[in-house]
Amino acid sequence: MKQIHGGDWAGFQTEYGFLPLDFSANLSPLGLPEGVSAAAAAAIGDAGRYPDPLCRALRKKLSAVHGVPMEQIVCGNGAADLIWRLAAALRPKQAAVPAPGFAEYERALAAAGCTVKRLHLRQEDDFALTEEFLAAITPELELLFLCNPNNPTGRLARSELLSAAAQACRECGTLLVVDECFLEFTPEPSRHTLIHLLGDMPGLVILRAFTKTYAMAGLRLGYALCGSAALAEKLRDGGQPWPVSTVAQAAGLATLDEKEYLERLRALVAAERPKLAEGLAALGLRVIPGEANFLLFYSGDPQLCEKLRPRGILLRDCSAFPGLCPGWYRAAVRTGEENDALLRAMREVLADG
Amino acid sequence: MKQIHGGDWAGFQTEYGFLPLDFSANLSPLGLPEGVSAAAAAAIGDAGRYPDPLCRALRKKLSAVHGVPMEQIVCGNGAADLIWRLAAALRPKQAAVPAPGFAEYERALAAAGCTVKRLHLRQEDDFALTEEFLAAITPELELLFLCNPNNPTGRLARSELLSAAAQACRECGTLLVVDECFLEFTPEPSRHTLIHLLGDMPGLVILRAFTKTYAMAGLRLGYALCGSAALAEKLRDGGQPWPVSTVAQAAGLATLDEKEYLERLRALVAAERPKLAEGLAALGLRVIPGEANFLLFYSGDPQLCEKLRPRGILLRDCSAFPGLCPGWYRAAVRTGEENDALLRAMREVLADG
Repeated sequence: MKQIHGGDWAGFQTEYGFLPLDFSANLSPLGLPEGVSAAAAAAIGDAGRYPDPLCRALRKKLSAVHGVPMEQIVCGNGAADLIWRLAAALRPKQAAVPAPGFAEYERALAAAGCTVKRLHLRQEDDFALTEEFLAAITPELELLFLCNPNNPTGRLARSELLSAAAQACRECGTLLVVDECFLEFTPEPSRHTLIHLLGDMPGLVILRAFTKTYAMAGLRLGYALCGSAALAEKLRDGGQPWPVSTVAQAAGLATLDEKEYLERLRALVAAERPKLAEGLAALGLRVIPGEANFLLFYSGDPQLCEKLRPRGILLRDCSAFPGLCPGWYRAAVRTGEENDALLRAMREVLADG
Repeated sequence: MKQIHGGDWAGFQTEYGFLPLDFSANLSPLGLPEGVSAAAAAAIGDAGRYPDPLCRALRKKLSAVHGVPMEQIVCGNGAADLIWRLAAALRPKQAAVPAPGFAEYERALAAAGCTVKRLHLRQEDDFALTEEFLAAITPELELLFLCNPNNPTGRLARSELLSAAAQACRECGTLLVVDECFLEFTPEPSRHTLIHLLGDMPGLVILRAFTKTYAMAGLRLGYALCGSAALAEKLRDGGQPWPVSTVAQAAGLATLDEKEYLERLRALVAAERPKLAEGLAALGLRVIPGEANFLLFYSGDPQLCEKLRPRGILLRDCSAFPGLCPGWYRAAVRTGEENDALLRAMREVLADG
């Protein structure tokens, strides 16, 4: 069976017998917070019962954190689950997604029989979102996915542009879904989130993921903040009733007590991203000026992943992203030491040929 | 938000402040095996990484257990996840489901835009599957769900009837999905499973759930055994790439070492089901002669659930199942002590009103 995403340490382990240094998944390099591990372990005692299908406690706490009524919050088995629910519940006929962009938007929409228009971001713009895409927002367009910062480019959209998109979506009756799964890794999330628009934009959905921010990818937890309770209800109806395990619910609750973790995380990413970018540029590679916890770069070598693999390093090959050709790669920003190991290995590999 | 299934202990807890004795969910009364809890807890240490999207280790072990190639096995976030994947991946135009039957078949099919025909099981037959339903299998029918034993009736299908259905599906090109999630609770699962047909029936899917058998509902894990690798691949493509958490994968692996648990479980259910059935019948109720770990019964009182609730007992109100009217209830078979508590409470409640 094919593997279309990063983070496949298990495939590596099967081949090599040990765990790789994984730059192919965009997870917090600080790892799962200790308090969260402990809460998850304690919750196993309750796992003999069904999980609360409505995630009541978690949604209540998220409601307080974000100032969004809990009736407008839906939790899912990772943000990917919510993307599939959106598509299944709304079954739009026409939708648009950024290209390059996260593959699940298009997969989920296609499975629901939707015609998907790709909004091409251009290399000559360093993949920045430009005014141009606003033209795609028409009354025929039922759903628009944006990702801020975008994956795999790492680019944040300009605030005025996002506001203009929201306004256009409102006028055209287009549902706007903004994937903010990587926003907490950027220096000023509150300046870029669209949460403040939820109050008067019923056709807005914001996606967030504990998966990435708290390195709890193995527990699976994401959530959607919806512009209306009716929309949240639809989303819940777009899939099975028990998506979020008891363990993930407990872990999610515990993360919300970990305020200091996010500050440490943002400080680490802010310090290490420019160093990694400089290091990659020093190797003669074109690095896209992203602001997330990962960097997109171009190397003339289409075999870079295969060459790094025997050295125990996983990189994300981006050649399968629409709009990117072989030679584009994505690397997660990890700890200084780990990033140095990546740069060292790349230097050797590129010197070899 | 509405709640359409049993097992909502969380809703009860919110209202009453303590946990109910829950007969509304059909889980193993033996609880989560200790070895499985321990394996789940240990796996939290690995939850900082993505789960293996392909569940390689678990599928390999399941392959050995069932004698089905691992390429034909797909794991899901509970069996419900696999039901939704089936519908999303195949998007059949016409399908049929038993009525009464598990609500997710119809929900998932409807979400995929499918016309669903209900195969009505009749009260006068004690809801047994009869020859009659074979007529529904036509070349126009793309997909047929059966559940053996059926939920909420608990009835096992006669083997000859199942074979005839399989043969008819083969001839008509109808995909046959047999939900065997409760089969391990019956006295002779190997006599009733259709696993032996997988080898020469590419259009067969068998659903199984750890959720119920090992009381790991809070961890979420089910799997599908498919008649072909191509069908398994399609199923995997009918949803997000990481449905099964790291913890659930580890727990699933551990359950497969718990051979003695299943024997104890079957012995308990075999001993307690007739006693519970007799007890219910002694209260003047009509009890359907099911063979699973739950019993369907009729009481003239449409308020039975509401009356048992303040006594700390949850029962499954079956009035929303198509083909059942108010007054039908489902009770899980639990330990002797718990079943006695249910019977006592029901005796009091029925005497009151």
